[in-house]
Amino acid sequence: MPTPRREPSSEKLAPKAVVGRVSLYIRQLEAAQRQGETTISSSRLGAALAINDAQVRKDLAFFGQFGHPGIGYRIEELLSALRHILGVDRTWPTAMIGLGNLGRALLKYRGFRSRGFQVAALFDNDPKKVGQSYSGLTVRPLDHLAQTAAELGIELAILSVPADSAQRVADQIVSSGIHGIFNFAPIPLVVPPSISVMTVDLSVQLEHLAYKVRNGSKGGISHAG
Amino acid sequence: MPTPRREPSSEKLAPKAVVGRVSLYIRQLEAAQRQGETTISSSRLGAALAINDAQVRKDLAFFGQFGHPGIGYRIEELLSALRHILGVDRTWPTAMIGLGNLGRALLKYRGFRSRGFQVAALFDNDPKKVGQSYSGLTVRPLDHLAQTAAELGIELAILSVPADSAQRVADQIVSSGIHGIFNFAPIPLVVPPSISVMTVDLSVQLEHLAYKVRNGSKGGISHAG
Repeated sequence: MPTPRREPSSEKLAPKAVVGRVSLYIRQLEAAQRQGETTISSSRLGAALAINDAQVRKDLAFFGQFGHPGIGYRIEELLSALRHILGVDRTWPTAMIGLGNLGRALLKYRGFRSRGFQVAALFDNDPKKVGQSYSGLTVRPLDHLAQTAAELGIELAILSVPADSAQRVADQIVSSGIHGIFNFAPIPLVVPPSISVMTVDLSVQLEHLAYKVRNGSKGGISHAG
Repeated sequence: MPTPRREPSSEKLAPKAVVGRVSLYIRQLEAAQRQGETTISSSRLGAALAINDAQVRKDLAFFGQFGHPGIGYRIEELLSALRHILGVDRTWPTAMIGLGNLGRALLKYRGFRSRGFQVAALFDNDPKKVGQSYSGLTVRPLDHLAQTAAELGIELAILSVPADSAQRVADQIVSSGIHGIFNFAPIPLVVPPSISVMTVDLSVQLEHLAYKVRNGSKGGISHAG
């Protein structure tokens, strides 16, 4: 008899830490699959991440019932479900906005593409940058964003502009119909509730590391995600 | 009469969120200073970060007593104190380990140097990379790490190697006498309690953004730090 499946709750989002661990589970499952495995136990799935089996089961239960009694998890089935849950089973046409030092560095980062973030257009307000080519794409002026987003079906933006223009550009992103912003500008963005933002502030994290080293802390297992 | 100063507690570290906000306060103070201001109120200090004045006062009280009745904060005094608290009032000689795609990109990121992280040596295990020059530094083989760290007084490492070698390299870092690791490898590192680690996993954060967009969340004010 098949295991009854509990539908995942569509009403609330999983906590940040759980979503972060789902990313790590996906990588573990991919690694096991590359080694020719077809099933995996919750304890093996958690072991490499220093997470115990109870936590693995609790995390996955947030999204549905995936285990099979006496078998564990079927890798292909669980991978497919988790990729779908995270939304990385598809391609996200993405705008890269801000081709400064960090923006150009990020453009070369293969992790974006490997997780489905396909940079489809580049934007900058600097007249010296507009018209230049990076990674085979030509930089467009920022006031073309709405039109280009509509033409290319752009859904996400990687924002890498200076702090003092970030909110203004974020407003342009929002009014262009883009739903999500991966924000590298060192400032919190204010956006409407329908827009998702992830802010990665490398300087803040650097300073936090300096703080911890200066004050003599505290190793163990660390995953800020 | 001078305000009595409470010595900051040296016994426990401030929570991550507080340290992250201190970074943001520093930037606000720097911006106000550039505009020629010499004092600032807690409400103005918080306003640009969408933090209320009570939270600003509570955060700063974690480290000492900085306000002056009827004046607010003296910008130069508070900046100097906060930079010292975070450990960014000095230079941290840093090793960059792993000169792949992301490592080379990070090497060009000016934020490291502007916050005192001075990349003093490059390391990689790939024989094709060893001996090459990037940003004026020659890549050394990883088994020179301990000797180079001692010679150059290296205290921190930026780790940007593949997941499957990250723990092994982290062990080498630890045995080289380096105290802190800024980890870009997509894996949690296990280190002794005397070592500090900050992990920045861009893929995990990308996947979290995809999850939020796919599930129709939730803007407002976002600062993951």
